[in-house]
Amino acid sequence: MPETRVLINLSNRHIHLCAEDIDILFGKGHGLTKTKDLMQPGEFATEESVSIVGPKSKIEGVRVLGPARAETQCEILASDVFKLGVSGCPVKESGLLEGSMPFEIVGPAGSVKKTKGLIIAKRHIHFDLQSAERFGVKDKELVSLRVDGERGATFHNVVCRVKASYALECHLDFDEGNAVGIGNGSFGEIEKR
Amino acid sequence: MPETRVLINLSNRHIHLCAEDIDILFGKGHGLTKTKDLMQPGEFATEESVSIVGPKSKIEGVRVLGPARAETQCEILASDVFKLGVSGCPVKESGLLEGSMPFEIVGPAGSVKKTKGLIIAKRHIHFDLQSAERFGVKDKELVSLRVDGERGATFHNVVCRVKASYALECHLDFDEGNAVGIGNGSFGEIEKR
Repeated sequence: MPETRVLINLSNRHIHLCAEDIDILFGKGHGLTKTKDLMQPGEFATEESVSIVGPKSKIEGVRVLGPARAETQCEILASDVFKLGVSGCPVKESGLLEGSMPFEIVGPAGSVKKTKGLIIAKRHIHFDLQSAERFGVKDKELVSLRVDGERGATFHNVVCRVKASYALECHLDFDEGNAVGIGNGSFGEIEKR
Repeated sequence: MPETRVLINLSNRHIHLCAEDIDILFGKGHGLTKTKDLMQPGEFATEESVSIVGPKSKIEGVRVLGPARAETQCEILASDVFKLGVSGCPVKESGLLEGSMPFEIVGPAGSVKKTKGLIIAKRHIHFDLQSAERFGVKDKELVSLRVDGERGATFHNVVCRVKASYALECHLDFDEGNAVGIGNGSFGEIEKR
């Protein structure tokens, strides 16, 4: 019987920036200031935040996560879509920016217009190689995740992402967490389809 | 084989007011101004809105739904809990206010401190008597509701509410709708447990 129980942490809207955009938004040579390590090895929250701007309005105080990435990518909540005016913003896996939406970023030192990079992150579970074996899942496999409780629900189409450098952790976003009434550090049960 | 397919509409935070509170908040003898009928017979949206105030901050523009009710009741979203500072706000069925939270309401003509009435509404499905028979459900029965799609999920603990005066309709709130990426007028499938 494979393992099924997995830790859930919740993501608010956030942004990953490429080095070039960090320079433009915060000033040439600016280094991101870590405030805390995240559970995925090497990933961290920073002091820096930006505004993101859509056709209809902007959202301020969007947290920058480090380190710098090859491509800038902003992960919003479905509940942000109406406010920004970005209806049709696709649900995508992190890093798969084909078909993502254009948006603008405003920082203290400048602003950048991006032709792509705005997504709603697809719910997913990070597995290191050993965990993937124990749970009997493969990279890219879709599973369901059951969250118990008064507002319990089973989320379908949860992507398993397997990589040696990952730590075992499920990422839902604030909309999903609120829908089932959970906070960081909750647990869910993987159900294979 | 019973019927399973049900229309889903989404509720934003809203408030139902008793006649006495309408007088205080909007002025003696004020009548609510209907803007549109809701799907449940007799229920309607109004022009009127109020602010609701919690220990930490307030939320403005909370829509008043009519008609006046015997007891004032405000249904917030789980995502409002942090902003208002009302952690522990219970998930309750509409009308069951035992154990609900105190809050304050501010209108254009006055304000009211309530000792109870603040809840997160429990997800539910309204059934008229004939629909309940066709679906094979009883009043207060808990069912699951599957919503398909890329962000599909199965919500558990959905309360069936059966009454002659109801119309067949599932009410999820904005958090729940955003978690599965649906809007008003979507459909779900009832799954018996």
